[in-house]
Amino acid sequence: MTTRWGECYAQRTEGMRSSVIRELLKFTQQPEVISFAGGLPAPELFPLKEFEEASCKILQEKGAQALQYGTTEGYPPLREFIVEKMGRYDIKASVDNVLITHGSQQALDLIGKVFLDPGDIVLLEAPSYVGGIQAFTAYQPRYITVPIDDEGMRVDLVEEELKKGYPKFIYVLPNFQNPAGVTLSQERRERLVVLANECGVPLIEDDPYGELRYEGDHIPPLVVLDERNLSKTSGGKANAEGFFEGNVIYMSTFSKTLAPGLRLGWVVAPEGVVGRLVQAKQGADLHTSTLTQMLAYEVVRTGFLDGHVRELRKVYRERRDVMLKAMEEHFPEGVRWTRPQGGLFLWVTVPEEIDTAELLEEAVEEKVAFVPGSAFFADGQGHNTMRLNFSNAQPEMIQEGIRRLGKVIEKRLEKAKAVA
Amino acid sequence: MTTRWGECYAQRTEGMRSSVIRELLKFTQQPEVISFAGGLPAPELFPLKEFEEASCKILQEKGAQALQYGTTEGYPPLREFIVEKMGRYDIKASVDNVLITHGSQQALDLIGKVFLDPGDIVLLEAPSYVGGIQAFTAYQPRYITVPIDDEGMRVDLVEEELKKGYPKFIYVLPNFQNPAGVTLSQERRERLVVLANECGVPLIEDDPYGELRYEGDHIPPLVVLDERNLSKTSGGKANAEGFFEGNVIYMSTFSKTLAPGLRLGWVVAPEGVVGRLVQAKQGADLHTSTLTQMLAYEVVRTGFLDGHVRELRKVYRERRDVMLKAMEEHFPEGVRWTRPQGGLFLWVTVPEEIDTAELLEEAVEEKVAFVPGSAFFADGQGHNTMRLNFSNAQPEMIQEGIRRLGKVIEKRLEKAKAVA
Repeated sequence: MTTRWGECYAQRTEGMRSSVIRELLKFTQQPEVISFAGGLPAPELFPLKEFEEASCKILQEKGAQALQYGTTEGYPPLREFIVEKMGRYDIKASVDNVLITHGSQQALDLIGKVFLDPGDIVLLEAPSYVGGIQAFTAYQPRYITVPIDDEGMRVDLVEEELKKGYPKFIYVLPNFQNPAGVTLSQERRERLVVLANECGVPLIEDDPYGELRYEGDHIPPLVVLDERNLSKTSGGKANAEGFFEGNVIYMSTFSKTLAPGLRLGWVVAPEGVVGRLVQAKQGADLHTSTLTQMLAYEVVRTGFLDGHVRELRKVYRERRDVMLKAMEEHFPEGVRWTRPQGGLFLWVTVPEEIDTAELLEEAVEEKVAFVPGSAFFADGQGHNTMRLNFSNAQPEMIQEGIRRLGKVIEKRLEKAKAVA
Repeated sequence: MTTRWGECYAQRTEGMRSSVIRELLKFTQQPEVISFAGGLPAPELFPLKEFEEASCKILQEKGAQALQYGTTEGYPPLREFIVEKMGRYDIKASVDNVLITHGSQQALDLIGKVFLDPGDIVLLEAPSYVGGIQAFTAYQPRYITVPIDDEGMRVDLVEEELKKGYPKFIYVLPNFQNPAGVTLSQERRERLVVLANECGVPLIEDDPYGELRYEGDHIPPLVVLDERNLSKTSGGKANAEGFFEGNVIYMSTFSKTLAPGLRLGWVVAPEGVVGRLVQAKQGADLHTSTLTQMLAYEVVRTGFLDGHVRELRKVYRERRDVMLKAMEEHFPEGVRWTRPQGGLFLWVTVPEEIDTAELLEEAVEEKVAFVPGSAFFADGQGHNTMRLNFSNAQPEMIQEGIRRLGKVIEKRLEKAKAVA
């Protein structure tokens, strides 16, 4: 009796699915397809020269260290850099509050691993980040979702849900949310941290795009508002460096500002939580590549990131504007979309009678691609929605892609009318 | 009520422990300590020049690709390279049988994630690799252990255990096992694959050191013997490339032959298993760093590894010999140790009355360090054992370190005698 592999898998694999987006990449990487499907930064903006110089320097001067095993917590100078960077946003972390992860996807996995027992409830936005859903699902939680509107997560509905019972944690993307591009208003943020603190429910604040704001004022992250709230209510106690042992685990990444191929993200959390995440990471991969950490540090340590992010903002804002304008021009009546103040994505809602998963097939024939929205719902809603990325394609390609997509939607609507 | 983090953790965290070894690193990184505790390759042998050239070339010629997102399965040319490399050992894999992981530690984690439900049985050696135990423990299995002797895992006792019930899988390190340095004999390997096939129990073959053989003949890996057994019993079917859908998941790494700081390992498994592992990896970290994969491929693609591994073998063999000779000279009577034919470690058993965890404190005072053996037992045995690494220190340091360690053991034995 040779191994029957199909009968060997753990129960948790039943919920595991390949990401639609990563599957789509296989189609959309055909060069003639204009893809709005990925979440890819513009490769022409990668700081290649800086990485080349950094890698020469690191391998010449500290090569033996760069190629050797390192600590699970991360390369100490990079952790110090994160502390300083966080400080600019009023997040008062010490180095012991920082863990470097193999991309922020790993932070999501470690958080699932450390907090979720089967059947635990995760409260999240509908739609939410598909990678978060994928990471958590491996730990077999149940999901409760709360819809979003133009001001982000409907915190009034969170309050309703909390009356019914407490989730293990609330997962939220406050800035230019993936997939919808919406931003949680300051008023709602303030209400959310008060709720979390009243109920003792942790908030997982996923903030990969916070630095990519193209208009409007910076809104303080939940972790800062939580600390302010705790100072008022004196429920929290500061550690030596003034970082509160509050209700929030904050996470971000270098993927959107520096380069995703490095796989470098980070978590800022109370020290005890970091300790647990470190234990989980030891079992998961020992530590993040020493070389990529040292390279990233070498590139960013002299302040390179500030100017680079300004450049990214300029380019991505233009692409967003081109996409919004093209949509006005080419999308038929009845189609709605969000107008993000930053980030990489916007969210399109087509009339009810269109299923975007079916629409995608026709779109790919017309050499344009997007992600059907249902992938972003923990409960399979959103059949008539889609996510569009505006960072990866050049402006003239965006115009052409939106023209094609508009045509596909229009054709589909006419067909639906003819049937009705 | 601020979040009470201590009450939020999942049940699985109760079994999670920090690796003793990684904790020890903090002590043993003091420069005056001669450490046999780590599993660190010799940094003076890292191919720095090759990596410097490779990184210039990659960033100049393919920089945008190297810094961009990549596929979860791994960088295709590197997977092709693994296929070819495996072929040299008669492992007939196709590219669809290969998954690149963030170090082989990640392969262990993904295998645990995909196969283990709480309460499932894992059968492994006593002692076994601490990182394997750490990875699996997060998925809450029960352990059944089988002792080792100079010919590796006691397969006769595996047979006894299988009569009582089938484990979810058998985890085994056949070559120069970490921690004990012993090698599973061909006869036992052949018996083990027959048993696995009769019972339909998967074998997880962890082979990080197979290429580092310093004497004796190569013994075919389990995955090859399993295929041969299947051809005879015709229970297995070959895929197009001739890779059998057999009972073995094979895994290895570049950490010992190229550089651990890259974090690059790989799994060779039936295609369906790779598919599940890929799903799990998507949720865990999306994909392994594109840059490190492209760098490693650039360094190895022209055959560099062959000569480099020959050089490593020469240096490590000498260090092993120096350590063995020094032990003959400095260790008191009643102390036994293994004589590994390869790898990085040997295993010392001191008289029953010594607890090596206590001994370590005295050793660190004398500026020498090792890993107490109990860390490598899933069930806490082995109080009078220790693991010594012979790859990291220079020969004269090995001599001096063993001299110090012999003195510490001797002192302890005298104290024990005085008390008795």
